[in-house]
Amino acid sequence: MAFLKVISLEEAQEIIGSFPLKPEIEEVLVEQALGRILAEDIVSPINVPPFDRATVDGYAIRSEDTWMAGESNPVKLKVVGEINAGDIPTIDLKPGTSVYISTGAPLPKGADAVVQFEDVDRDGEEVIIYKPAYPGLGVMKAGADIEKDSLLLRKGRRLGFKDTALLSAVGFSTVPVFRKPRVAVISTGNEVILPGKELKYGQIYDINGRAIADAVRELGGEAFFLGIAKDNRESLKRLILKGTECCDMVLLSGGASGGIRDLTASIIEELGEVKVHGIAIQPGKPTIIGLIDGKPVFGLPGYPTSCLTNFTLLVSPLIKKLLGQEYRHRTTRKKLSHKVFSVKGRRQFLPVRIEAEMAVPILKGSGAVTSFIDADGFIEVPENVEILDDGEEVEVILFGI
Amino acid sequence: MAFLKVISLEEAQEIIGSFPLKPEIEEVLVEQALGRILAEDIVSPINVPPFDRATVDGYAIRSEDTWMAGESNPVKLKVVGEINAGDIPTIDLKPGTSVYISTGAPLPKGADAVVQFEDVDRDGEEVIIYKPAYPGLGVMKAGADIEKDSLLLRKGRRLGFKDTALLSAVGFSTVPVFRKPRVAVISTGNEVILPGKELKYGQIYDINGRAIADAVRELGGEAFFLGIAKDNRESLKRLILKGTECCDMVLLSGGASGGIRDLTASIIEELGEVKVHGIAIQPGKPTIIGLIDGKPVFGLPGYPTSCLTNFTLLVSPLIKKLLGQEYRHRTTRKKLSHKVFSVKGRRQFLPVRIEAEMAVPILKGSGAVTSFIDADGFIEVPENVEILDDGEEVEVILFGI
Repeated sequence: MAFLKVISLEEAQEIIGSFPLKPEIEEVLVEQALGRILAEDIVSPINVPPFDRATVDGYAIRSEDTWMAGESNPVKLKVVGEINAGDIPTIDLKPGTSVYISTGAPLPKGADAVVQFEDVDRDGEEVIIYKPAYPGLGVMKAGADIEKDSLLLRKGRRLGFKDTALLSAVGFSTVPVFRKPRVAVISTGNEVILPGKELKYGQIYDINGRAIADAVRELGGEAFFLGIAKDNRESLKRLILKGTECCDMVLLSGGASGGIRDLTASIIEELGEVKVHGIAIQPGKPTIIGLIDGKPVFGLPGYPTSCLTNFTLLVSPLIKKLLGQEYRHRTTRKKLSHKVFSVKGRRQFLPVRIEAEMAVPILKGSGAVTSFIDADGFIEVPENVEILDDGEEVEVILFGI
Repeated sequence: MAFLKVISLEEAQEIIGSFPLKPEIEEVLVEQALGRILAEDIVSPINVPPFDRATVDGYAIRSEDTWMAGESNPVKLKVVGEINAGDIPTIDLKPGTSVYISTGAPLPKGADAVVQFEDVDRDGEEVIIYKPAYPGLGVMKAGADIEKDSLLLRKGRRLGFKDTALLSAVGFSTVPVFRKPRVAVISTGNEVILPGKELKYGQIYDINGRAIADAVRELGGEAFFLGIAKDNRESLKRLILKGTECCDMVLLSGGASGGIRDLTASIIEELGEVKVHGIAIQPGKPTIIGLIDGKPVFGLPGYPTSCLTNFTLLVSPLIKKLLGQEYRHRTTRKKLSHKVFSVKGRRQFLPVRIEAEMAVPILKGSGAVTSFIDADGFIEVPENVEILDDGEEVEVILFGI
């Protein structure tokens, strides 16, 4: 194998950023678009309301017919028809006439106002109006709510229920969204077995497979758990190939230390190219990143907390990129609850949990499942720092979306 | 129809609370459990690790063999085998012997410590140890991470990726969750058509169907949009019956005013019982609530903002109840940006948006789609209040989860 050059986190992130992956767009039904990421700006193809609409129950009139009306000299207009919501009006309203109209119904041609039912009297064929109506009274004009061609939603927006409702209101039945990145997830290790199976002595249940697959889903991707590779070339190669065939990227966990790390690197060398041989951070130094057929393959650490930390630093931004979104770590500034010791010359990321508005370092070790469960995120201890004092403010990079 | 008694919001909420609906439990695959609500407390069926596990690469030993060791008088132990992760150790370690062991592998019987590879020398069949090892060195004891029978997750928890990973780590392949409430959604109105169809003059696209269905989904329910009922008894009755057959509850929008309101009430009277004829709030006064075959049927207002306000006040708590969760409105306290006028003797809920940390009243009217889209929630103006001054602090009840 080639000389194993360990690079900085920023160099690794730059390499990942240059991978030949682009967001793809697909058209989905609006009824299946909840939670998806909008791929184009949406402008309204119609006016809302699409027509001048009555906002009250009453009589559609030509307003100028009423301008001389008063309590003592009411205006009488002949009622020549009735329009209900959903009706298509065929009447062309002549001066001196009116039409009974219900809320939501379209105004007939010639009408420019609706006088409310409660404000008038009806006398047989006639409606009696006691005060002048102004043009637009009782009417919502076409486009007054939403104007045709106005910008409704911006590209990159995660569609919530008000957004899908808005798309519906202007007539969209389908909408362009970014295709969910397809992510193959592989666990490794002879001792690792699938949950649900009986545990034999010396075996442990898989944790990283589920954690990574569901973390991908929470980010908006689609995850395919391909299974657990044994510590041999055939098993690992078969699953990596399956992953590059079915998905946009492949994530291995446990493939970044010892035997499996070397196997992973060698398989990537055979099928493609190793781009990152190691990163100068702890955890994550033995992280392997390569390309096979243009598909990124990540060998992440096996310890759950280390795996998730490296996933957050390296993979989350790529998934977000494929969803057309700029990635920013979710962060929060907190004071440290306890003093933290680090090793000089080593850039460390330490798991912490947030408790009572403090960042509490988790000291159980990244091999513990409970460290992983307790951790809300991690803090960085730079290379030249040996001690972070309790009470010192730190930036916590949070796990998850 | 019976005398139409208008009751208070609290009375209506109490009636809904007494409806004969209970959360139901179903067992789902852990790989499909992300986002679901846990229906039972989960205790660990196993120890994690399930066995005493090596935490370093090195030699498994009986620690007492080394207690006399020193730099000048090292202890030599015979290496009688090798155990890798995933191996099932068959060796029973005798005094004076050791076994080569890799990280994650189970300790052989008799061994109680692992001395690290880097700290010893190997000489043919023997390992040379220069300092005493204490019992437990280089070992994670069975159950040290998670103890068998310890409580892991509490009933009512919404499962995130760390929770599904934890379930996986202790061997669960399925998990009991609350069944998603099945909610039938019906829109009404002769003028309302499905998005995607061509709009004829006088028609508008449905908005409430999509809004309510997707709001139900965001809350954790399953929504079934049954279509748009015409303003006639046959059409409406057919869809209401379909809803009570397929779902746990039926939500109609636009069925709460005018003709459709009366039709809805009459159909519920025929097939079941009307429980609420109206609520003394604005919007929502003509809201109809009934039971058909023990299934709640809600006739919500037609204006989008009014519909969503009543959905939030009346339906959200019921959906949350079926998900085994106590419902609390999401609220935030903000200062009003503008003076608000209300009508004395009327309990009003007014849509507001949150902007620059202020609650901004939306004055466009609840008939406007844009009011609905702009609104982040609503504020209450009590019956005896006519004016809320700008700068006054108000509690905003937020839409959505």
